[in-house]
Amino acid sequence: MSASTVPAPRPPLRVALAGIGVVGGGVVRLLEANRDLIARRAGRPVEIVAISARDRHRDRGIDLARYRWEDDMGALVAADDVDVVVEMIGGADGAALTLARQTLGAGKALVTANKAMIAHHGLDLARLAEEKDTPLKYEAAVAGGIPVIKAIREGASANEIARVYGILNGTCNYILTQMERNGASFAEALAAAQAEGYAEADPTFDVDGIDAAHKLSILAALCFGTKLDIDAVTADGIRNLTAADIREAEALGHRVRLIGMAERDSGENGGGLYQHVQPCLVPSDHPLAYVPGALNAVVAEGNFVGRLFFEGAGAGAGPTASAIVADIIDIARDEYGPAFAMPVDSLDQAPAADAGARIGKHYVRLIVEDRIGVLAEIAAAMRDAGVSIESLIQRGGDDEDSVIIVLVTHEGPANAIHAALGILAASDHVVGTPMHMPILAL
Amino acid sequence: MSASTVPAPRPPLRVALAGIGVVGGGVVRLLEANRDLIARRAGRPVEIVAISARDRHRDRGIDLARYRWEDDMGALVAADDVDVVVEMIGGADGAALTLARQTLGAGKALVTANKAMIAHHGLDLARLAEEKDTPLKYEAAVAGGIPVIKAIREGASANEIARVYGILNGTCNYILTQMERNGASFAEALAAAQAEGYAEADPTFDVDGIDAAHKLSILAALCFGTKLDIDAVTADGIRNLTAADIREAEALGHRVRLIGMAERDSGENGGGLYQHVQPCLVPSDHPLAYVPGALNAVVAEGNFVGRLFFEGAGAGAGPTASAIVADIIDIARDEYGPAFAMPVDSLDQAPAADAGARIGKHYVRLIVEDRIGVLAEIAAAMRDAGVSIESLIQRGGDDEDSVIIVLVTHEGPANAIHAALGILAASDHVVGTPMHMPILAL
Repeated sequence: MSASTVPAPRPPLRVALAGIGVVGGGVVRLLEANRDLIARRAGRPVEIVAISARDRHRDRGIDLARYRWEDDMGALVAADDVDVVVEMIGGADGAALTLARQTLGAGKALVTANKAMIAHHGLDLARLAEEKDTPLKYEAAVAGGIPVIKAIREGASANEIARVYGILNGTCNYILTQMERNGASFAEALAAAQAEGYAEADPTFDVDGIDAAHKLSILAALCFGTKLDIDAVTADGIRNLTAADIREAEALGHRVRLIGMAERDSGENGGGLYQHVQPCLVPSDHPLAYVPGALNAVVAEGNFVGRLFFEGAGAGAGPTASAIVADIIDIARDEYGPAFAMPVDSLDQAPAADAGARIGKHYVRLIVEDRIGVLAEIAAAMRDAGVSIESLIQRGGDDEDSVIIVLVTHEGPANAIHAALGILAASDHVVGTPMHMPILAL
Repeated sequence: MSASTVPAPRPPLRVALAGIGVVGGGVVRLLEANRDLIARRAGRPVEIVAISARDRHRDRGIDLARYRWEDDMGALVAADDVDVVVEMIGGADGAALTLARQTLGAGKALVTANKAMIAHHGLDLARLAEEKDTPLKYEAAVAGGIPVIKAIREGASANEIARVYGILNGTCNYILTQMERNGASFAEALAAAQAEGYAEADPTFDVDGIDAAHKLSILAALCFGTKLDIDAVTADGIRNLTAADIREAEALGHRVRLIGMAERDSGENGGGLYQHVQPCLVPSDHPLAYVPGALNAVVAEGNFVGRLFFEGAGAGAGPTASAIVADIIDIARDEYGPAFAMPVDSLDQAPAADAGARIGKHYVRLIVEDRIGVLAEIAAAMRDAGVSIESLIQRGGDDEDSVIIVLVTHEGPANAIHAALGILAASDHVVGTPMHMPILAL
C-alpha cells in the first residue's frame, strides 16, 4: 500500500482513575505493562493523566508519582485533558455515584466496576449517558474478567434469551468447593476463605447472595431488554447449608452451587421475569458443576445459538483490570453504544414473576428424631401440601438420636415445598432448620 | 426526557444473502423469527433485500418467494439497495472469494462464515476492507455460535495472550466422545457420526485436522497480532487413535481431545509462533476434558485476566446463523473496526516455531510382541533418544501374542519422542503404528 493511504494517527485517549485500591492498582499496572500492545489494538495510545483517591500517601506498591494527583475527585471531571473517568471507589451511592453523575453530566466517558451502583442507579446513569451521547461501560461489574457483558450485549445479540444463569460470586463458590473437598462445615469453609483472602471479615454481602443479586439484575436487563429492577431480585445465601447437604447432593449425582438465575415466565403466570439467587443442585453433566474455587461462570440460552458457557476469574486485581481496560479500548476504538444495548426508554418494564409458582424438582433435607411415626408425619405433610415424592433416603444422623431424611420431589411449584415445611415446622420431631433447593434443569 | 431529544430513526440495514444451504436457511429463519428484537438491539431494522444461490428451485423448507432472487451473485454487489453481503458459499477460493473481493471492492460490508477463505485470504481481504473503509466480519468462521472472535478481539483486548487453544472441530469431538462412552473404535465412531449427520461422507477435512487448522490460524492472528499464516499450521488428525488409547488415557486420569493450540515460543528457540492441531491428553481437572459431543470450546490465557474458557455449539444452522447475525448487528450499530483488531500493515510477521523443540510430557503407546527382551529394547531406544520415562504400564493386548505398552515421559522435546520411535521402527517386535500425544499442561 502507498503511504498516502495510511490515516493520520489518532490522539491518545486520556484516562483519569478515581479510587486506587486493589483494582485501581491493577489498572495502573496493566496500562503500564501492556502499553504498546494496547496502543496497537486501540488504534491510539491510552494514557493515564490523573489519579484521585482518599489517601495519597498509602503504600500501594506502585509508583504513582508520575501521574498528576488530585485530592478532589471532581477535579478529574473538570480537567480539560481527561476523556474517560474510571470509577473504582465502590458503594452504590455516595462519592461513587456523585462522580459518575458528574462525569456523564460533563459529557465524558465513564467506566466502572461498581455492580452495586449499576444495579441501583444503572438506568438513570444510562439515560444521562444517552442525553450527553457519551459512553457508559461496566464490563467489570459482572463476573470480573469474563467478558460476559460483551458476550451477551453483542455476541449473542441475535438471540431471544430464554434464561441466563450462573455462578456470580467467587467467595461462595470457593466456600462450596471447600465443603465438597474436605467435608468442612460452612463455618470452617468460611474461615478458610477469609484466611485466603477470598472472603471479607463481614461476609454478608457475599454469602447472603446480595453481590450475586446485583450482578444478576444487570445480566437480566441485558438479556431480556428490560428495565433493571434490583428490588425484584430475591436472594437466599449459603449460610444454612451443611456438610450433609453437600454429601447428599453428591450421592444424588449433583453438586451444590449458588446460582443466580433470570428467566422469562412461561406466560401462564403472567409472563413476568423471575430473578432469584439461591443454592441449587447442579447435575454432574452440566458444566457449572465443574466450576472450582473462586471462579465465576455464566450460561446464556439463546433460541438460535443454544447454550453458551463462559468461565473465568470473577474477581481480583488482574481480571477486574482486564475488564476495565477492555472497556477503555472499546471507547478508544469508538466501538460502543447504549449501555443496556438499547435506549433506556425502549427497555420493557417486566413485572416480577412469582418465584413460588416456578415449577421444578426440589431437594429437601430434614433432620428428625429417630422414632416411630416421624417418617409418616413427613409423608403426610408432603401429601397434604401436594408435593409428589420421587425418591427418599433415610440415613443415620450426626448423633444417635437423629436421622437425616433427604427427598427429591417430582416437578412441582416451590410454594408446595414451602407449605409442606410450614406444616412440619409445627412438629416436635423436626430438629433444626430444614434445607430445600431447586434442582437445576438442563 | 423530552421528545426533542429522541434521535431520528435510522434507516434499515439492507442485507443480501449469497448461498442458501443449511446455514443460509438458518440466517433467513433467524432474521424472520427475531426481527423485532434485532431491530431494538441494532437500533434499526435489518432487512433481507436479495438472495442468490445456485439452484432457485431446490426445496429448502423455507419460503424465499418474498425476497428478490438473483441468479448472478455479482448482482448482489451491484445493487444500489444492498449494504451488506453475507457470503455462505464456502470454499477457500472460487465463487466465494470472487464475491468477497467484489463486495469489499465496492465498499460494501462483508460477513462470512468461511473459515477456509479467511485462513487463506483473510489478510488480503482485510487490506481491501481497510482501503475501502468497510467492515469485514467473520465471527461464524471460528467455533460456530461461540462469540470467540469478539471475546478475544475485544473482551480480552487488554491482555497479552500467552496461548490460545481449544476444541475447534465438533465432528472430531463427537467421535472421541463416542469412543470414550462406548469403547468404540475410530471406524465405528466415525460411522456413528456420519449416521447422525455430524460427519461428511468424506470426513478428511474434519478428522485430519484441516478444518481445525483453519480456525486456529485465525485465532492465532487475533491473539498475537501476527499475520495469518495457514501454511505454518501443522495438523495431525485422530485416525490413528485406538479404543485402547482412549482407555489408557482414562486410566491415567485424562481424556483425549483434538486440540488446536497456538503459543508464543519462550524465546529460547527464536521467539516464533507455534501452531499445531493434534490429539492431546487433557487432565480431568481441565474444563476441556468435560466438553462433550459436537460442542466446541476455546481457552485464552491472558497475562492479567488469567484463563478464560468459552463453550458452545461449534456448528449447525442455528448457532452459525447466530454468529452471522451478531456480525450484522455490529455493522448496523457501526461498532466494528479492523478485521484483525489492528491494520494489516501493523500485524507482526512471526516466524514459525519448531514444533519438535516444544517441551512437554508425552503419552506413548506401542503394541509389541509378547516376548522376552522387547521391553529392554524399548527402554534402550528411549534412553538413546534422550527420553526420560516417568511411568510405564504393560497390559495384555487384544490378542494372545501381543501386549500394549503405555509410557508417560518426563518433560522433554517432542523431537526426542520422534527419534525414539524412529529407532523402534526398525524393530521386528513392534506391531502396527505407535501413537504419541502431548499431555496438556495446565
